[in-house]
Formats: sequence, C-alpha cells, structure tokens
Amino acid sequence: MHACILEQRPPVESGLPGLRHATWAGSEHGLSRLSVWRQSIAPGGATPPHRHACDEAVVCLAGEGTLFIDGVRHGFGGGQTIVVPGDVEHQIVNTGTRPLEIVAALAAAPVVVRLPDGSALPLPWQAGGK
Amino acid sequence: MHACILEQRPPVESGLPGLRHATWAGSEHGLSRLSVWRQSIAPGGATPPHRHACDEAVVCLAGEGTLFIDGVRHGFGGGQTIVVPGDVEHQIVNTGTRPLEIVAALAAAPVVVRLPDGSALPLPWQAGGK
Repeated sequence: MHACILEQRPPVESGLPGLRHATWAGSEHGLSRLSVWRQSIAPGGATPPHRHACDEAVVCLAGEGTLFIDGVRHGFGGGQTIVVPGDVEHQIVNTGTRPLEIVAALAAAPVVVRLPDGSALPLPWQAGGK
Repeated sequence: MHACILEQRPPVESGLPGLRHATWAGSEHGLSRLSVWRQSIAPGGATPPHRHACDEAVVCLAGEGTLFIDGVRHGFGGGQTIVVPGDVEHQIVNTGTRPLEIVAALAAAPVVVRLPDGSALPLPWQAGGK
C-alpha cells in the first residue's frame, strides 16, 4: 500500500435516512485498522442505535446533538469530541436546528456495525454493505 | 471505560520545535487502539522523519505542506487528507507561509514513534514520553 493524498469530499446522501456521508480514509485506501468518516446529520435525524467492536472518536465541527449511551444522555456540540469505547451501544441524535457536522475516526477498516439485536447493519458506503 | 465528552483544546507548545499539539482523544481517555491529535506546524517547521506501526490519516484543515515518503514528495494543503500506512517512514514539512493546521487520527494509543535509526522518539505529550 502507498501513501495517498485525497480530496476531502463533502458528505452526500448515504442511503440511511437523515445521514449524509463521505469516507475520508478507509479500506478503499489500503487501511486495515483505521477509518475516517465525514458525516452530516439533519435536524431531527439520528444514527440508528448501534455498536461496533472498535474504539471511536467523534470530532464535532458544528451543530448540537445528544449522545445516548449506557442509559445516559450527554449533550454535545461544535468544539467538542465524543469518545466512544468499543462494543458499547450508542446513538447520536441531532437535537439542534442546524445540521450536525462531524468527523468520526474509528479503529477499524471496514467497520462492522451491529444493531441492538446483534445483527449486522449493512453500511451502504462500504463494499458489500459490510 | 466510559464514554466522555471532551473540549477540543487548541494546540500548545509541544516540546518539539515548531510543533504545537493537543490530544483530542487517546489513552488518557481509555482508548487503546485510537488516538486523535490536533497539531499546528509553524512555517518552515516539520515533524522529524519518523515511523509508527499503526496506520495514520492526517486531515489537513488549513495551510500548505509537503509529505516526504518512500523517497517521493507530495504537496498537500487544506481540504485534503493524507493516508500514511503503518511502518513507513515519513515526514511532514510546512512549506507554506501560514501555520499548517492538521487533525491526525492514528490506529494506536499510545503511539510509539520511531526515528529512522529505529530508536523510540519520546513524545512529550504522552505519559512517560512513550
């Protein structure tokens, strides 16, 4: 695998409702243990409740949201970073009035996301939806 | 380990010349396989030539720089992301006239950085300089 310089593409319709996505770095660039995702969640939109085995850090660029995790809700917004340990179910909801703009770093590539019932959630932006 | 919400602190003098640093996520927050660093490299400044076993993605926010890797130089700047595979020696130089502002995601915590001679480079911002 070689180093590469990539344009930071803006997030586009992802196939998941209310969630725009762009992969800024991932398995398609030869990475096996790191992904960087740029996402925009519309007001009122949310990720599904989900979990993944890998650690995650969500850098919030703008907007306001709520993190639901471990039965607790945490408010956050632009200028803050969320640290989510691996294997813990969580959900991010845009509870503000503007798009919630985030850059998520995840310690896996590709990222296998699971729903609360344990089934895999195919991610439209990953090869094979895995 | 628990989820946490962290303020994105601005980078401060790191102890490495020309390099300002802030850890936005890392081992001090309970992560074991992911670090997120916010760094600012002064005009004319540079990282040492170095390598680490983990994959890295460098999101460039502003400024202009040159990546030296595999005997090749690549220009890059704000709006671009560099993908650096693990175990490959590289160096980032600010070849512009403004600070080079970056967010680096690395698939390790703590990150063990090695100089070209194989010796470990203690990082002042990591516990024990490791």
